[in-house]
Amino acid sequence: MDIYEESLELHEKYGGKLETKSKISLISKEILARAYSPGVGAISNKIAQDKKNSYIYTLKKDTIAIVSDGSAILGLGNLGAYAAIPVMEGKACIFKEFANVNAFPICLNTQDTEEIISIIKNIEPVFGGINLEDISAPRCFEIEERLRKELSIPVMHDDQWGAATITLVGLINAIKLRGLSVQETKIVISGIGAAGVATARLLFAYGFSKIIFVDSKGIITKKRTDLTKEKKELLEYSSTEEKDGGVADALIGSDVFIGLSKGNTISPDMVRSMNERPILFTLANPIPEIMPEDARKAGAYIIATGRGDYPNQINNSLIFPGIFKGILQIPGAQFEIGLFVFVAQKIVEYYNNPTEDELIPSMFDFNIVSVVEEAVILYYAK
Amino acid sequence: MDIYEESLELHEKYGGKLETKSKISLISKEILARAYSPGVGAISNKIAQDKKNSYIYTLKKDTIAIVSDGSAILGLGNLGAYAAIPVMEGKACIFKEFANVNAFPICLNTQDTEEIISIIKNIEPVFGGINLEDISAPRCFEIEERLRKELSIPVMHDDQWGAATITLVGLINAIKLRGLSVQETKIVISGIGAAGVATARLLFAYGFSKIIFVDSKGIITKKRTDLTKEKKELLEYSSTEEKDGGVADALIGSDVFIGLSKGNTISPDMVRSMNERPILFTLANPIPEIMPEDARKAGAYIIATGRGDYPNQINNSLIFPGIFKGILQIPGAQFEIGLFVFVAQKIVEYYNNPTEDELIPSMFDFNIVSVVEEAVILYYAK
Repeated sequence: MDIYEESLELHEKYGGKLETKSKISLISKEILARAYSPGVGAISNKIAQDKKNSYIYTLKKDTIAIVSDGSAILGLGNLGAYAAIPVMEGKACIFKEFANVNAFPICLNTQDTEEIISIIKNIEPVFGGINLEDISAPRCFEIEERLRKELSIPVMHDDQWGAATITLVGLINAIKLRGLSVQETKIVISGIGAAGVATARLLFAYGFSKIIFVDSKGIITKKRTDLTKEKKELLEYSSTEEKDGGVADALIGSDVFIGLSKGNTISPDMVRSMNERPILFTLANPIPEIMPEDARKAGAYIIATGRGDYPNQINNSLIFPGIFKGILQIPGAQFEIGLFVFVAQKIVEYYNNPTEDELIPSMFDFNIVSVVEEAVILYYAK
Repeated sequence: MDIYEESLELHEKYGGKLETKSKISLISKEILARAYSPGVGAISNKIAQDKKNSYIYTLKKDTIAIVSDGSAILGLGNLGAYAAIPVMEGKACIFKEFANVNAFPICLNTQDTEEIISIIKNIEPVFGGINLEDISAPRCFEIEERLRKELSIPVMHDDQWGAATITLVGLINAIKLRGLSVQETKIVISGIGAAGVATARLLFAYGFSKIIFVDSKGIITKKRTDLTKEKKELLEYSSTEEKDGGVADALIGSDVFIGLSKGNTISPDMVRSMNERPILFTLANPIPEIMPEDARKAGAYIIATGRGDYPNQINNSLIFPGIFKGILQIPGAQFEIGLFVFVAQKIVEYYNNPTEDELIPSMFDFNIVSVVEEAVILYYAK
């Protein structure tokens, strides 16, 4: 049996991975009258007086929604709301198991931007935070941006920021091992979807500025007339001389490749055209832009992928449990780019002895949740 | 400390009563790769092929939403979505503790009928059923009716049908003890909100027909020009001679009073004007239409209330856990009035030796969930 058959078997056995649980055993009439009617009326009245009291007396304090419209599920594409359920459910399990954050999947039957924004605003009362998930670009940018402005609870699109933050951790460690400075490192980012844009923004915020961006049409330049708002913004993050052409042209003379595009799109020759001992983050799932064995043969020094069966898995599971656990403790806090940079720095500080094949911590390093959580608390205490 | 102070203390201690739980311990990379990425992709693909597979592989099979807009919270009125959270959370705990049904509270920031319908249709994928709760009349009627037509999962407004079903159980037992037939029993229902309308519909479906209805303006008659659609429908359920006036006039010569209105609205003299040994369901919460002590002194034979501190608590907690547990097992089933009648009959069959002070089963009779669940399965097997 392969991993997919085993996954089917596991899911058949459990018939759903997430369940609810009452913290209070409702064993008597007396307890029931306090946990529910009529006693709970006192709580309703308290909250009616001041809705902030919902953070004291209800699940809102430690519960988030994982919201998806199923438009960009894993590497599979737009499979819709129902197909998103098992993914969001699995993510909810990770939130609970790794950080004791209650997370509940909300899978939406609509892919209309305004409708998604409106629904999330309307279901907000129960939740202390919103994890947007597997929503395709460019809608994900507007949805996140608008919700951050229009809601009073923190909102994060994990495909963007979880992925970008752990990529930044890996990149900081990789250039340290390679002996490059932030200022001189020449980076190519290929694939300008949700993760690509967020990674670009985060790398620039950290100080990287020699970045070339490549989408499915080729290198993003000022000459292009087909650029979205987000792609135009990327031009500001690049201080390299302008190049034309495709990803092969972009890679010549670069130090780092960050692939968030499609499998099998980078050849060994392209790797050889990069500067010596290049760093490759080939994050396309499930098939990387170039297989690690081939990249290694072509001279790659550090190779990271999105896969668990190779070293250096760039896994946003290192970020999301702790970052939500932290922000739920800060009344009124909203996610912002400075926080993601700070979290990445704190992980780098903690994980101070990376190697080529252990570039970032394992997600089974159970200190990581606390490292991230404490970073969030420290950031907002500043 | 009274019950309300104790409830505050309990809620402060727990800070929310409901939590999520992973059924699978995510202790290794191998398990994680099957419960989550990449293995879960196989489940997404299965569901993308046929969304019915979501019932096999996800929480949809045993998870419902408890949806409220906070417009009619307990006996407290329109306190809004935030004040509804602790009530819905408590109800979710009851679902889990009594019937092992996963229930999650959804409290909506809108009280617009169309918006509520649209949101519920959009969040439906994750859920196997919808429990509408504490939504005010008459919007609750349209919301429930429309959702039953427009969704493929079962929808029940518990304030209507949970309350009505357990009232029918109590009434069947009460007239048996009193020695009255269904045909001859003269009933007054006071309070024509959500529960009043559903109780009327259910009693009529069971065979009661001598019913007088009273709302805040008085007896509902054909002469009235201010009747909603639902109130006009009630006129069909009454074969008594038409009376004018208020609840005092309605009660003269009646056998049964069912109060779903306001506290302290029935006097001992009104009880004395009823037929001998009258039956009183004074269900207004927290203060009944007449206090049981006063009703007893005025000659009442059987007295039921909504309160746990008097005998005969008419408690819809006897219905909702089992009825959802049952219907979740029937693919494609929708709630309908015949089901509620059948469930009431099966409870009466099971609880075959009621007394004046033990008119209905205790909710701590843990057989009740199975009795109700099996009734649902039997009903749909017919």
